[in-house]
Amino acid sequence: MPVMRIDTTSSVPLYAQLEGILAADIESGRLRPGTQLPPEDSLIARFSVSRTTVRAAVQNLARRGLIEIRRGRGTFVSRPKLTQELSGLTGFVEDMQALGKQATARLIDQGVVPAAEAVARHLQLEKGTPVVRIRRVRLADGTPISLDETYLPHDVGIKVMANDLEVEPIFTLLEQKYDLPLIEADYRLEAVAANSDVAVALLVPLGSPIFLIERTSYCADRAAVDYERLYYRGDQISFVTRLARR
Amino acid sequence: MPVMRIDTTSSVPLYAQLEGILAADIESGRLRPGTQLPPEDSLIARFSVSRTTVRAAVQNLARRGLIEIRRGRGTFVSRPKLTQELSGLTGFVEDMQALGKQATARLIDQGVVPAAEAVARHLQLEKGTPVVRIRRVRLADGTPISLDETYLPHDVGIKVMANDLEVEPIFTLLEQKYDLPLIEADYRLEAVAANSDVAVALLVPLGSPIFLIERTSYCADRAAVDYERLYYRGDQISFVTRLARR
Repeated sequence: MPVMRIDTTSSVPLYAQLEGILAADIESGRLRPGTQLPPEDSLIARFSVSRTTVRAAVQNLARRGLIEIRRGRGTFVSRPKLTQELSGLTGFVEDMQALGKQATARLIDQGVVPAAEAVARHLQLEKGTPVVRIRRVRLADGTPISLDETYLPHDVGIKVMANDLEVEPIFTLLEQKYDLPLIEADYRLEAVAANSDVAVALLVPLGSPIFLIERTSYCADRAAVDYERLYYRGDQISFVTRLARR
Repeated sequence: MPVMRIDTTSSVPLYAQLEGILAADIESGRLRPGTQLPPEDSLIARFSVSRTTVRAAVQNLARRGLIEIRRGRGTFVSRPKLTQELSGLTGFVEDMQALGKQATARLIDQGVVPAAEAVARHLQLEKGTPVVRIRRVRLADGTPISLDETYLPHDVGIKVMANDLEVEPIFTLLEQKYDLPLIEADYRLEAVAANSDVAVALLVPLGSPIFLIERTSYCADRAAVDYERLYYRGDQISFVTRLARR
């Protein structure tokens, strides 16, 4: 395979060409996950381009999640994202077990709050009804993966709160301790930018891409028992599914 | 319902309180989609907060997609996102028809390129094999919704390219004109930040949240016939599905 070179006669901007070359090196494994990107000076010399060009290419690769800029330590090729099946209703601990990862949780806060419009609608309650809100950071092998905001109807929520929620998964509590087997859930999937709460909780820059899952889980008779907003780090996870033609 | 006020004795920062009040007004419909947000000076007076506080709250609302800042024209409450079913393999034109939207397309470019690593893997070809790449912006009622990068095996791709791809959906061509009925597809869903190509094509700021769908569609016998990267504007669309407990 020929070594890829910058083509100064091309109409493609130099930074975009360099971005493409480095992205191909990462994709092919020539630049391995976790290793350091060659330093700026070496890229300038190797490709005969300006510092501005190298910086623009590197910024774009970082935006695409292919590399990570760690302040004061250098620029590293990202490790591949976790790939999670999106084909059945499962909780975080179950998902991480399926991936061979150690799931842990950090409780941010929990308490009774009046249901806002959306919370009330999803839990089939009147707006303003007291509900329980629990906020946790979920980690896989010690890396923050998602900020979970869980809303539960008041009575079951109070019971759930009495447990150690850094250890006990809420799905397990609902199903096994409180006899509320989950049947199915409605999902809404969106790409959003991290606001300050999410950025602080997940240790990412403000505005980072977040894969937001809004999920309402139901027991028998479509009784809504759990409404969640799951803010997943876009740089850490991807979801896969298979759909048939209709 | 009591008028919501800023609580200066609270430990919640003032901008976050204001953000919450305005978000609740948008959610409840008190501030209607498409209408202008009250001007900065009026928010400063009404909530007795500084300009800095108002600006921080407004910036966060914009990041969350609840409002849109249109340069030189003011700040407007966003219209709700399109809500698209993610429960079967469908093409953009079919999806927009289901939503009562007029689907159009703008062809950016099309041509034969050597298959990069990922393209080759998904189309079950050797890396470097010539494939056809087609790039289009897809619009709904005139608003850019996604940038679609379609890769087709060379022979069928050449035939597809001969059509007017601003008018003819590729799925329809494959199925009806070239006798390649699609059976199913593998999806990968991610939240990423818009790089410069995507930002320019979709008229969004660099780094905006993008809902990226990578999709490989198969004919009979799992023969891969179409590999796509669909960059959806995060501020324009959300996807819904229902999953059963397993």
